[in-house]
Amino acid sequence: MAAIDNVLQRIDANSSDALARLFELLRIRSISTDPAFTGECVKAAEWLAAELNAIGFTASVRETTGHPMVVAHAKAGRTGVPHLLFYGHYDVQPVDPIDLWESDPFDPKLVERETGAKIVGRGAADDKGQLMTFVEACRAFRETGGLPCDVSILFEGEEECGSPSLPAFMAANKDELSADMMLVCDTGMWNKDTPAITTMLRGLYLEEVVVRCADRDLHSGMYGGPARNPIHVLSKIIADLHDAKGRVTLPGFYEGVAELPDEIAEQWRQLPFDEHQFLGDVGLSVPAGEQDRSVLEQIWSRPTCDVNGIVGGYTGKGSKTVLPAEASAKFSFRLVGKQKPDAIAESFQAFVRARLPEDADVEFISHGASPALQLPFGSEALSRARRALQAEWGKEPVMAGSGGSIPIVGAFKRDLKMDALMVGFGLDDDRIHSPNEKYELSSFQKGARSWARILSALSA
Amino acid sequence: MAAIDNVLQRIDANSSDALARLFELLRIRSISTDPAFTGECVKAAEWLAAELNAIGFTASVRETTGHPMVVAHAKAGRTGVPHLLFYGHYDVQPVDPIDLWESDPFDPKLVERETGAKIVGRGAADDKGQLMTFVEACRAFRETGGLPCDVSILFEGEEECGSPSLPAFMAANKDELSADMMLVCDTGMWNKDTPAITTMLRGLYLEEVVVRCADRDLHSGMYGGPARNPIHVLSKIIADLHDAKGRVTLPGFYEGVAELPDEIAEQWRQLPFDEHQFLGDVGLSVPAGEQDRSVLEQIWSRPTCDVNGIVGGYTGKGSKTVLPAEASAKFSFRLVGKQKPDAIAESFQAFVRARLPEDADVEFISHGASPALQLPFGSEALSRARRALQAEWGKEPVMAGSGGSIPIVGAFKRDLKMDALMVGFGLDDDRIHSPNEKYELSSFQKGARSWARILSALSA
Repeated sequence: MAAIDNVLQRIDANSSDALARLFELLRIRSISTDPAFTGECVKAAEWLAAELNAIGFTASVRETTGHPMVVAHAKAGRTGVPHLLFYGHYDVQPVDPIDLWESDPFDPKLVERETGAKIVGRGAADDKGQLMTFVEACRAFRETGGLPCDVSILFEGEEECGSPSLPAFMAANKDELSADMMLVCDTGMWNKDTPAITTMLRGLYLEEVVVRCADRDLHSGMYGGPARNPIHVLSKIIADLHDAKGRVTLPGFYEGVAELPDEIAEQWRQLPFDEHQFLGDVGLSVPAGEQDRSVLEQIWSRPTCDVNGIVGGYTGKGSKTVLPAEASAKFSFRLVGKQKPDAIAESFQAFVRARLPEDADVEFISHGASPALQLPFGSEALSRARRALQAEWGKEPVMAGSGGSIPIVGAFKRDLKMDALMVGFGLDDDRIHSPNEKYELSSFQKGARSWARILSALSA
Repeated sequence: MAAIDNVLQRIDANSSDALARLFELLRIRSISTDPAFTGECVKAAEWLAAELNAIGFTASVRETTGHPMVVAHAKAGRTGVPHLLFYGHYDVQPVDPIDLWESDPFDPKLVERETGAKIVGRGAADDKGQLMTFVEACRAFRETGGLPCDVSILFEGEEECGSPSLPAFMAANKDELSADMMLVCDTGMWNKDTPAITTMLRGLYLEEVVVRCADRDLHSGMYGGPARNPIHVLSKIIADLHDAKGRVTLPGFYEGVAELPDEIAEQWRQLPFDEHQFLGDVGLSVPAGEQDRSVLEQIWSRPTCDVNGIVGGYTGKGSKTVLPAEASAKFSFRLVGKQKPDAIAESFQAFVRARLPEDADVEFISHGASPALQLPFGSEALSRARRALQAEWGKEPVMAGSGGSIPIVGAFKRDLKMDALMVGFGLDDDRIHSPNEKYELSSFQKGARSWARILSALSA
């Protein structure tokens, strides 16, 4: 029997204990955003450090200016193996509105349903249930001969409140946190039976544009006509940013945007994704955006430009015949592939300036920029992880994109030059951040088995 | 000596008494918007009614649901003469900020300056000083043989707070307020030495447009691309409303917009109007709007389309990656000539609907519409008034337009079918509504003489 089969058997044998351990962790009220629960966050960190020490890691609770980190290390029995860093977070979202919960959010329950058993409680899916899949995989290795590779673990306690302590902690512990690759279990499956690897995260460039014309608000009777209206100026800029086919018109915008490999494009075409259902759920029916791209492609692998907010002039009830002195809009660009945020910022600012009439001034207020992240489709690690998941689930894992960003992944890529393998077992209906959060029992159990297979595959 | 010369001599002889009478009226604190001054408004109405009764009018103070009206009538000594209705208002603006006044706003003073004597006090120009020019003209006629025509007078006490009682009062007293023409003294001169007749008031059509797409705010990472953004939809509509030459692109918009008569166009070209000074005063330097029209033409006689306010999505500090469910904008159209508000509303709504993508809905919220008002350039009354002012001031009066509307004039035109002759003696630097409001002593004295000449001319 291959070594991995022993490990998988051990995971199965451990499963009721594993569930009991997860429930212990779920009972800790580690709400990071509310200072009333600071002690509970410390308690969760200590609980995790103790668990990791118990299975052969050298684990410690590390102070930060906010909630503590847990850092742990364990070596494989041999050299010449990769060193992997697993990231997860032990903090959870608040539980409001509490009266919508069907049971106490911090008294986790296993609920049997027609679609299978579910673990219900705050943090079940985000992220305690997910991170424990990895811990249980490590435990099974430990109990059957040892880890196949060097493993470090970082558990954070501030993910749900913006990770304020993380940058300084990373800078201060750069060497300790460096590894060959990062493993992240904070994403989802395609559906209950089909695993997914998130290989692409869109980047984001945020820029606020303030257009100013006259030096005060003017009466539209007195000045209407000859006085420049900044709302018109701004609207023209916004209107010019897309062509009739939904493409962004910014010069150079699509530089670094590659077409999908044929294999991935074909996989996406075959996915049972109902565009009309996806849009219909939010009251829409017709895809906007690039007309020659599917909805899935647009969200997972295409860049966008959107205005997230606009304001100018009188916005109260009724009317006011004012010509405002200024108007402003907040733009966001989702970036993919090798698009360069700096180059796009430069192009955008030039695009805006080119559309300013003589009497209009512009102020740019940057709200940050980060490039897209992509685990190269051709990478060996990705191929191995795909095969590992295929073996566990009996289905080819979906090579998913993610429309949004995961800041931690960007930070590790930027500061420690580490790529991330993002595999998670959440489902769209897990109600993370909402009442009655749940995690499929099958996700928890097969998730642990999946990590065992992945660690083994990456170490071969 | 012609009869009019007697009248003018009498006005001059009365001048110091006339100033004392105006000061009495200015001392009454008739601030209409502040309930604390309700009694002062009644006092002003009673003072005016007594003055008018003293010079041969049948005048009465008339209750309304708000501050009272003063209505007065006097007949000429003969028949076959026109019947004119003079309108003015006895209420004034609040005096805040009181510490910026150089003297008590309700203790009027005559202040000698290099540019001539000024009457300083709240209401000096708006509108007590102006309405008393007409009363003094009537007094002089009375003292030299009688009025040359039938004269009715309506003094309102709520002009500065939106005239809430006026519509019902007009409806209830339609016959009594009807006359051949309305005279209004609430406008200005071209400059201190050059009189003006305001022959055109722009109309106004106000429409709020709410564009809705998804049924909730969406995450721009999750939906950015395929989800329609209502800010983009609205911006495209706004951008499409003007062409590159500053013309409004709404189909049929310029129907009913006539070119100026050559004589008026030439007069305007000759006026010493400094476009750069006008724009420079508010921080602008280059005329926007229709490129082939002068600034004066744009404000006085051309229609416009402006957005007075826009809002959608996140407008607080920083950024939020939201795709808003809705965005709205408040549009105003200044109308001229024979433009029909109804037709323009229909065209605008069709214009908006034609630019709605399939998933966008629109709601229109109307905030009212009124056509432009124009005293025909060819009218006999206008010609006579022009000659009368020319005789008094030694200069051709400017046939001015007004960018804004004067609601009372629109109401009389709409409900009583009366045209208005708008002649006033205010100056741009009178600081109406502001601290240290003033009225030129020459405006007061020559204003009374001007009305005497106009009444005489209209009655010949």
